[in-house]
Amino acid sequence: MTDDVLPITPKTAFSRKRDRAGYDRRDIYSILDASVLCHVAFMFDGAPFVLPTAYCRYGDNLIVHGAVNGRLFQSLADGREASVCVTLLDGLVLSRRAFHHSMNYRSVVLFGQFEAIEDPDMKNEVLNALVDHIIPGRCSDDIIPNTRNELAATAVLAMPIVEASAKVRSGPPRDKEEDMDQPVWAGVVPMRTVYGMPEVDPETRSDVRLPDYLRHLTTGQ
Amino acid sequence: MTDDVLPITPKTAFSRKRDRAGYDRRDIYSILDASVLCHVAFMFDGAPFVLPTAYCRYGDNLIVHGAVNGRLFQSLADGREASVCVTLLDGLVLSRRAFHHSMNYRSVVLFGQFEAIEDPDMKNEVLNALVDHIIPGRCSDDIIPNTRNELAATAVLAMPIVEASAKVRSGPPRDKEEDMDQPVWAGVVPMRTVYGMPEVDPETRSDVRLPDYLRHLTTGQ
Repeated sequence: MTDDVLPITPKTAFSRKRDRAGYDRRDIYSILDASVLCHVAFMFDGAPFVLPTAYCRYGDNLIVHGAVNGRLFQSLADGREASVCVTLLDGLVLSRRAFHHSMNYRSVVLFGQFEAIEDPDMKNEVLNALVDHIIPGRCSDDIIPNTRNELAATAVLAMPIVEASAKVRSGPPRDKEEDMDQPVWAGVVPMRTVYGMPEVDPETRSDVRLPDYLRHLTTGQ
Repeated sequence: MTDDVLPITPKTAFSRKRDRAGYDRRDIYSILDASVLCHVAFMFDGAPFVLPTAYCRYGDNLIVHGAVNGRLFQSLADGREASVCVTLLDGLVLSRRAFHHSMNYRSVVLFGQFEAIEDPDMKNEVLNALVDHIIPGRCSDDIIPNTRNELAATAVLAMPIVEASAKVRSGPPRDKEEDMDQPVWAGVVPMRTVYGMPEVDPETRSDVRLPDYLRHLTTGQ
């Protein structure tokens, strides 16, 4: 990973609350690597669209994938402008004053264009990285690999991470001094996304046991 | 709530996987009412932007709010086209075949225009509804209410829910018949967002105890 700071552009400059903004590639990547879901915005027939999709970071690119005949991927593959957002909610911030209620979060917004990866071997490698980003260890196990036909039916798109910013709020509520003595509960209610116990498909072959990587996914939280 | 079905439009028609699509207002509202975070897409200086923000449903409108001098709200208040997405991740779907890996989710995508609510009393009512959507019961407690100046500094925007679709995937993996006997763990790893124990601001007045509505928020999950 290049340990640098992304340039501030008209799109990534903050109009307010600049103390929450970040442009360090390292910080941006740590947020991207902590989630599995992004929201992609693009223009379609003259109107903005936003759609959710799984993603991973692969080197200095953000990767999304989907059916080659789907609207999202047909639209994005032509190199039109896009924006991608990843948001992690960390807590509800309960201030004494209604006006100062907030949330703790880490988010990244990226701008740029996607480019389709066409080489089947590269597609396969990136798709495996996507599975392993979402379920670390899954691909090194023995899932049935992608065939050439499956690779041909899958659009794999990469957006170089060159124009992006992070935005982070953390910590307790910040009320005005004159409000501190009001009889109101103030503090933070933490939020996080957790995994439940894996629910095996009853048709799974009887000699197959719960893999270690799934045990780790649900106990390490 | 009107118990009707939204019309399928060119924007909300699904190009594929139509079995996952839904247009019942009731289904759309149940998804909107289950989350607190949306992603809003709009055009700004000729390029698409997507930003995260808190929201609530208020009657047949989706409500967002923010600083009147913020980019998101200055841009949206002029009635330009926007798209809003709410996504709840319910699980990772692990199929035998890499190609059939998926996620369980419930999502809604809306299209339309926001309109600014200008009347201070209506703004106040809608902002209180927003707080109570995110932390049920918080507003009926004694938080310090919005002042006229605070209301003037806050943009409250409403998008009528008229063009929208829901998309839902649930249940186990669906592998091909010929793959069912492969020695691969298949099933679902459930995901959900949970609240942790409330962390009181140490400067909270000593006679203030944890309110019941926060106890319910964290134990009812």
